[in-house]
Amino acid sequence: MPSWAIGIDLGGTNIKAAVVDEAKGILFEDSQPTDIASGPEGVVRQLALLASDHYQRASELLDTGTFAGIGVGAPGAVDSVRGILSYPPNLPGWGRVPLRDALQERLEHAHGLSAPILIENDANAAAYGEAVYGGGNAFRDFMMVTLGTGVGGGIILDRKLYRGPNGTAGEIGFMIIDFEGESVHAGVRGTLESLIGKKMIVELACGMLSDPKESPRLMELCRQNPSKISPRHLEQAAMEGDPVALRAWQRVGTILGVGLANIVALMDIRKFVIGGGIAAAGELIFEPALMQLHRSTLPSMHEGLEIVPARLGNTAGVCGTAALCFASGHPLRSDD
Amino acid sequence: MPSWAIGIDLGGTNIKAAVVDEAKGILFEDSQPTDIASGPEGVVRQLALLASDHYQRASELLDTGTFAGIGVGAPGAVDSVRGILSYPPNLPGWGRVPLRDALQERLEHAHGLSAPILIENDANAAAYGEAVYGGGNAFRDFMMVTLGTGVGGGIILDRKLYRGPNGTAGEIGFMIIDFEGESVHAGVRGTLESLIGKKMIVELACGMLSDPKESPRLMELCRQNPSKISPRHLEQAAMEGDPVALRAWQRVGTILGVGLANIVALMDIRKFVIGGGIAAAGELIFEPALMQLHRSTLPSMHEGLEIVPARLGNTAGVCGTAALCFASGHPLRSDD
Repeated sequence: MPSWAIGIDLGGTNIKAAVVDEAKGILFEDSQPTDIASGPEGVVRQLALLASDHYQRASELLDTGTFAGIGVGAPGAVDSVRGILSYPPNLPGWGRVPLRDALQERLEHAHGLSAPILIENDANAAAYGEAVYGGGNAFRDFMMVTLGTGVGGGIILDRKLYRGPNGTAGEIGFMIIDFEGESVHAGVRGTLESLIGKKMIVELACGMLSDPKESPRLMELCRQNPSKISPRHLEQAAMEGDPVALRAWQRVGTILGVGLANIVALMDIRKFVIGGGIAAAGELIFEPALMQLHRSTLPSMHEGLEIVPARLGNTAGVCGTAALCFASGHPLRSDD
Repeated sequence: MPSWAIGIDLGGTNIKAAVVDEAKGILFEDSQPTDIASGPEGVVRQLALLASDHYQRASELLDTGTFAGIGVGAPGAVDSVRGILSYPPNLPGWGRVPLRDALQERLEHAHGLSAPILIENDANAAAYGEAVYGGGNAFRDFMMVTLGTGVGGGIILDRKLYRGPNGTAGEIGFMIIDFEGESVHAGVRGTLESLIGKKMIVELACGMLSDPKESPRLMELCRQNPSKISPRHLEQAAMEGDPVALRAWQRVGTILGVGLANIVALMDIRKFVIGGGIAAAGELIFEPALMQLHRSTLPSMHEGLEIVPARLGNTAGVCGTAALCFASGHPLRSDD
């Protein structure tokens, strides 16, 4: 009998929660603003209430005997064995928080719900979600790359999440491809995130806009104010043939392709699933990325190279944390 | 009872062979020039003779009942499941050679020896040798990097060789860290090998030698002819305080450190074992590499970072291929 789980995605802006059926995927979901002002204690209370509400609703539809547990995806360094979240970048003021135990206690005492809980890094969770229910489902080994405000990633090897010895694997945003370049992010020079993080894509396009008259459509979209250009404007303008927007995406794809080439050379991974808000530009990025990927690797590494879009959008995280509750081999599950 | 195996390292210049005891390591070894002119058939005859000779000598000392097999390390793309070597770069004119089957047949028919044989990429074999008998023995997860004419590598995860889905993992020489730079190797721009392959190190030093009078010691070692500078000269001159030689190694270490940082970010590997002829410069490279590794990674990734020298020198390959014969989990062994 398939089991079900509650997947939660704890972000700096919103908390998403979903009830996920092992076979059917998401049954229902909900999202609410993160009560960031209330600190870790307040957010734990919020998570517990959300989980408990979802459990109640689900128990009217589903067999509680097949409930697999609650998975929480969170930004930052996650020790999934100990259930500890450390210094999440989008949750200011949080230090080392024993999120699993705090949530477990709150759920038991305030809501009378005793359930296995696992904590996972959000990028890892999203990669696993795409592996089980999304764009990576056909691949045994792939890397998920998330292009958004930042550049993140998660690695799937042999259909399992590869965490690395310390649980910090997949930080493709910190891959250096231009070590003598000008761009710096979080103190490291020439990283992929420093080159094609959301802000940099907009800067890139502005830098290319030497003569606004050449780009009437892009100028119209940003209401004649280049400082207001957004990735969405660039996407739309490129679809309509704007030369600057097209060149900007070409450049983003090329840089992404260089980064992916390093993954091919190092890990022999040849399938890439690309998600995140920026990835909405789709083939505008994927096509130049795949071309560059061929240029930047040896011919003996070309067989099977593929770049595909993620399919779960912003539900990858909740799907992934729930799926981890079903999976054997998760640190929590092997402790069971 | 410990078993024993024959490890062979097939290079473009020499073939090395050794009888390796599982517990004690190398018992005896031999090396002879590769009969490259005789093509694949001739080299297979040479390999078979060498293996048979070693088997005969070993069988006078050891129990043939504990003989685990013959492991052959070879340059280029190796399909270890099928035992096929493809286009080895240092064996001109070789295409796709079914090395395992050819060697097996020759051994049986010409020498009456029937033994399990496995074929492995030479850099992978060296990494596994260091894992079992050498500088990586204390580490559960590490990357071996070989600095020589080329830059190569092998990855050990959870004490096992990580080959990747297609068997080409670990090609750190093709990691791009300067995608807009001038240096190109094998058609790919800005790779680690294009920057710190042996030839480039010498060029780097020559480029720094703006005023030969500043480097009397280095000039003396190369007999006043900068085009004759070798890495060995640079090593000796640096030990004696020559400023240009010191600066050259500093630069090599810095570039290596950037490459290693990418492995930390992507795979969460924090231990590095450095071998190959260039690595004889030791701390002249390792110290700046470790400093750069800290600069090029997030503070949350600094714990446990370590760079150590390989310990097996040019016997890493024969030790590694023999050790693979003892290991469970090798494609050959799991077929047994």
